[in-house]
Amino acid sequence: MSKGIAIFTSGGDSAGMNPAVKCAAEYAARVGYKPWVVYDGLRGLIDDKFAEADRALMSGILHRGGTFLRSSRSKRFFDIAYRRQAYENLQKRGIEKLIVVGGDGSFRAMNQFYADFGVPFAGIPATIDNDIPETDYCLGVDTALNMIRQSVDSIRDTADSFSRAFVIEVMGRHCGYLAMVSALACGAEVCLTPELPYNMDSIGERLRRDLKSGRNYILAIVAEGTKMGDYLTRWINDSIGMEARLTVLGHVQRGGSPTVRDRLMAYKFAVGAVDALERGEKDSIMIYRDGTYSTKPIHQVCDSRYELDPAVLRLCQPLCQ
Amino acid sequence: MSKGIAIFTSGGDSAGMNPAVKCAAEYAARVGYKPWVVYDGLRGLIDDKFAEADRALMSGILHRGGTFLRSSRSKRFFDIAYRRQAYENLQKRGIEKLIVVGGDGSFRAMNQFYADFGVPFAGIPATIDNDIPETDYCLGVDTALNMIRQSVDSIRDTADSFSRAFVIEVMGRHCGYLAMVSALACGAEVCLTPELPYNMDSIGERLRRDLKSGRNYILAIVAEGTKMGDYLTRWINDSIGMEARLTVLGHVQRGGSPTVRDRLMAYKFAVGAVDALERGEKDSIMIYRDGTYSTKPIHQVCDSRYELDPAVLRLCQPLCQ
Amino acid sequence: MSKGIAIFTSGGDSAGMNPAVKCAAEYAARVGYKPWVVYDGLRGLIDDKFAEADRALMSGILHRGGTFLRSSRSKRFFDIAYRRQAYENLQKRGIEKLIVVGGDGSFRAMNQFYADFGVPFAGIPATIDNDIPETDYCLGVDTALNMIRQSVDSIRDTADSFSRAFVIEVMGRHCGYLAMVSALACGAEVCLTPELPYNMDSIGERLRRDLKSGRNYILAIVAEGTKMGDYLTRWINDSIGMEARLTVLGHVQRGGSPTVRDRLMAYKFAVGAVDALERGEKDSIMIYRDGTYSTKPIHQVCDSRYELDPAVLRLCQPLCQ
Amino acid sequence: MSKGIAIFTSGGDSAGMNPAVKCAAEYAARVGYKPWVVYDGLRGLIDDKFAEADRALMSGILHRGGTFLRSSRSKRFFDIAYRRQAYENLQKRGIEKLIVVGGDGSFRAMNQFYADFGVPFAGIPATIDNDIPETDYCLGVDTALNMIRQSVDSIRDTADSFSRAFVIEVMGRHCGYLAMVSALACGAEVCLTPELPYNMDSIGERLRRDLKSGRNYILAIVAEGTKMGDYLTRWINDSIGMEARLTVLGHVQRGGSPTVRDRLMAYKFAVGAVDALERGEKDSIMIYRDGTYSTKPIHQVCDSRYELDPAVLRLCQPLCQ
Repeated sequence: MSKGIAIFTSGGDSAGMNPAVKCAAEYAARVGYKPWVVYDGLRGLIDDKFAEADRALMSGILHRGGTFLRSSRSKRFFDIAYRRQAYENLQKRGIEKLIVVGGDGSFRAMNQFYADFGVPFAGIPATIDNDIPETDYCLGVDTALNMIRQSVDSIRDTADSFSRAFVIEVMGRHCGYLAMVSALACGAEVCLTPELPYNMDSIGERLRRDLKSGRNYILAIVAEGTKMGDYLTRWINDSIGMEARLTVLGHVQRGGSPTVRDRLMAYKFAVGAVDALERGEKDSIMIYRDGTYSTKPIHQVCDSRYELDPAVLRLCQPLCQ
Repeated sequence: MSKGIAIFTSGGDSAGMNPAVKCAAEYAARVGYKPWVVYDGLRGLIDDKFAEADRALMSGILHRGGTFLRSSRSKRFFDIAYRRQAYENLQKRGIEKLIVVGGDGSFRAMNQFYADFGVPFAGIPATIDNDIPETDYCLGVDTALNMIRQSVDSIRDTADSFSRAFVIEVMGRHCGYLAMVSALACGAEVCLTPELPYNMDSIGERLRRDLKSGRNYILAIVAEGTKMGDYLTRWINDSIGMEARLTVLGHVQRGGSPTVRDRLMAYKFAVGAVDALERGEKDSIMIYRDGTYSTKPIHQVCDSRYELDPAVLRLCQPLCQ
Repeated sequence: MSKGIAIFTSGGDSAGMNPAVKCAAEYAARVGYKPWVVYDGLRGLIDDKFAEADRALMSGILHRGGTFLRSSRSKRFFDIAYRRQAYENLQKRGIEKLIVVGGDGSFRAMNQFYADFGVPFAGIPATIDNDIPETDYCLGVDTALNMIRQSVDSIRDTADSFSRAFVIEVMGRHCGYLAMVSALACGAEVCLTPELPYNMDSIGERLRRDLKSGRNYILAIVAEGTKMGDYLTRWINDSIGMEARLTVLGHVQRGGSPTVRDRLMAYKFAVGAVDALERGEKDSIMIYRDGTYSTKPIHQVCDSRYELDPAVLRLCQPLCQ
Repeated sequence: MSKGIAIFTSGGDSAGMNPAVKCAAEYAARVGYKPWVVYDGLRGLIDDKFAEADRALMSGILHRGGTFLRSSRSKRFFDIAYRRQAYENLQKRGIEKLIVVGGDGSFRAMNQFYADFGVPFAGIPATIDNDIPETDYCLGVDTALNMIRQSVDSIRDTADSFSRAFVIEVMGRHCGYLAMVSALACGAEVCLTPELPYNMDSIGERLRRDLKSGRNYILAIVAEGTKMGDYLTRWINDSIGMEARLTVLGHVQRGGSPTVRDRLMAYKFAVGAVDALERGEKDSIMIYRDGTYSTKPIHQVCDSRYELDPAVLRLCQPLCQ
């Protein structure tokens, strides 16, 4: 009987999770594993929600947003008794290895599980915040950026029609990646993020100058983590004298059919994860850095600090001054 | 020299305005007018922002959202002195007739202008609220509904992935049309609008029953005018015990490339408006009722009360009980 | 035990089939039926591919294109022995009524089945060709038109960038509805359809005149049924002297998430179909005419001739002259 | 007076050209140039179609597909007399440097122009074929891939609904990059490209095995350059016994609003091009390799052979066997 491998998604959902699960299951089968999936993330590991990853189950999921396996956060998993229960669920099915698609919290949980019971795992980074250290890219980011782009392009129609300012708040608690890249991609005039200091005086001068020389609307992107949405909207009304509105994009950003980039990254991460487990790696995280896919042991990932692409920071600098 | 006709957009922007302007200009030219456009709505009439509607100007606007002529609200137009200025701007160009694409406020302004100076006009109803009396449809509604649909379909990905409730607030101050139709179209479980009384107790019972029998997420649509977004979100959290989030769609709903329905309606309204002026009608509003296009004098439109499609009301009834 | 009702899709697939099935099943359950679905259309009726239409089965289908029940064409159904087999499949489950979502061929098959075994049915018109007599609208048309619009808007980018002509062939064997409406909606310069005679000489003159006065690209829409795609492309190359390319849109037109209009029509047709069966109608087809939903006995539908909206014909006239 | 720089697009159009032009013009202005644009590519250089790249001209182009500057192919540019005419057009405006957004043919033309008149240039790679040597990425590829994805996802609806095979031909004359990546991203069962040898027997066996074990439809992607579309369609009909249809995606692939990836790449390439010219480079092409942006002299680019990403080749291998 072939050895079992189980795949699940954990933490906040992101586009690209479904292709990653599908590809990991199919590639694992090709190299000799019997693939399983777990529903409801860590909670499902404990509560025994497993299913064989056969063709019927994997069919029609590639192009769907979110995660068909569902995700969850689980406090019980911090308790060794529940982790033991999860381990028994693996044992009774002959599952010897795990692939987790999620964020660094989920990776840490798996690392603890490996310390407890010696079940090797591989982690595939997936979060729209793009804030996992050591990798330039996390699954779901490209789809989220394109959802934002479509929303902002739509808002621009009204901004331009009505000669108004729009402040658009995008997701990202500690990390302004989504805000910065979407500001660049959508040609916003202002971008406020946790990473870059801003100067309202010079922003004000710049905007007034632009409006004088013919600009008739303003688009500003703020990262959720700055909590500056309301303030900036009022400030544009009061200091710039242009009618301004705030739009909080919210969960629209998380969904949508995964883009080609997310699907392709999912493919490569998934193949890499199975290969890493095959090579005998025990606690590897897939990373994409400088155009190359590789793996790093979890402690190198989770003990690092996330650093934002300096080129993006430099390009955004003029938008907060 | 051929007689002039001027076309402009006024009030809140909506998809379908651009195709209406383009088609009105082209059709007017075909039947012998010299077509003009006015930028910035009523404000542009006063401030003399006219342009000849030639091929170059009309090119590449059909598929763009919003209104390339821009819109505005103008208090000055209530003042006869400014209206006279507007009239002189028409006279010096030989413009004898007007087509206004907008809402009932704009129609009333034109009616006053007609009373003052005898310039006949035709009104094309355009507002995403779909709340202009006597017509079943206003330009922009179909595009707005499809923008909402795409957003809600995207949010559903996360709702389903994470077994959560999402409350989605859509536009509509006094009119719940957008909320109701998008609730039906997106299969929402709950819909709160100004038009329909709701019963939180029976909604609660229904949702709890659904969740027991297997449903794992909830979508609720609320009309802006109800101001119930925050309340409903907390109520689902507290009374239903499911984690709930609020998303206010905002101006994303206004933009987007006009749908085929909006473009085709724009075509027919525009041809109808030019034809009405050709027939000698002085103050007609285009209407679409029971599948038929016709015109009504403005007083019949503006003195009526808007009534929502009873079939839509009936279909939505179960969503607020 | 409650009486059974079975719903299936038949003939060419179209967007709106899924919402129609879902709504018919849910509404039928609400008024006291036990709802079933049949996979694979008429073939599944014979081969006994039934499933209870419970919540789990109906979940997550509303926004999907095509038909999750799959469709088929079946020669066996012309044979009374197979029809009897189908009837026995109904009997053993207590299914007394049928709802068929499809085209007039499927309606006729059901009519024969009713003549044989007295099983009442209701038909919901669904075909992207929009060529079913007596109804102004068939499910799937609006989605198909918007898919075409997006493709043509995309092709326009290249046409304009490269000063080229593009001939775009859209679906529609005997009926030019899709071609005509998309030509209007996309601002095409030429539209060739089976319904309207064309004059290449006057088209040529018109295009040459347009190009002289500044136009830099040409979009032409041809209906599949005219078989004029290749010819027109060469003719533009040779007679107009502009580089021209042919694009056959093909099955891209059939898919895509149903638009709001298709979902709402599906809702109303489905409720109407169940209501008609409840009222005791035996062989009714749902129709939408002049803005109103009603039913007609099948012979009134299938013995009529389809007639295209004269307003659309009139608006398209200038595009083939 | 500040020194002039002119930007133009040349060769086949691709999404990302507009953002590249806009960003190059704005960034060039920021570092002290007077930016110009040239309409109609090389032809416009000769025929003196220049415009100052001021704010009004650059406004509203970022999110538009194709190239608003239009493109062309020009035989006259091979003639030194016409090149001299182009040079004079530069001289009379004080334009000392050029940025060309296009393919390798356009780069070579600029190289000749540099040899003739010593006007330094920088090239930004833009072509949906992704076949320019030395760079992993060309502007427009990501948008083209996502247009293909949407089309294939739409066709899948019908394929699945009707249990059919669809063969989809995508662009790419000598290079199968689009075909391979879209086959992977869309989960196609078969992919035929110029780069990979195929084995119809083993493909046939594999498909028959899949269909036996439950698969009900087939998607196959073929690169234009293989000219295998018709053959494969008939072969599936005849050898596999499943009804098959061919769809040639055509120019739909070229258009569409640029994705975030294309806009961001455009930004970085454009900044890089201006910086290279500022550093005194005379004949550099922007490249993106292994996650890093840099420049290479044209001869190193144009004398190399394009090589496809080996990881993509490996992942696609199973699809042609």
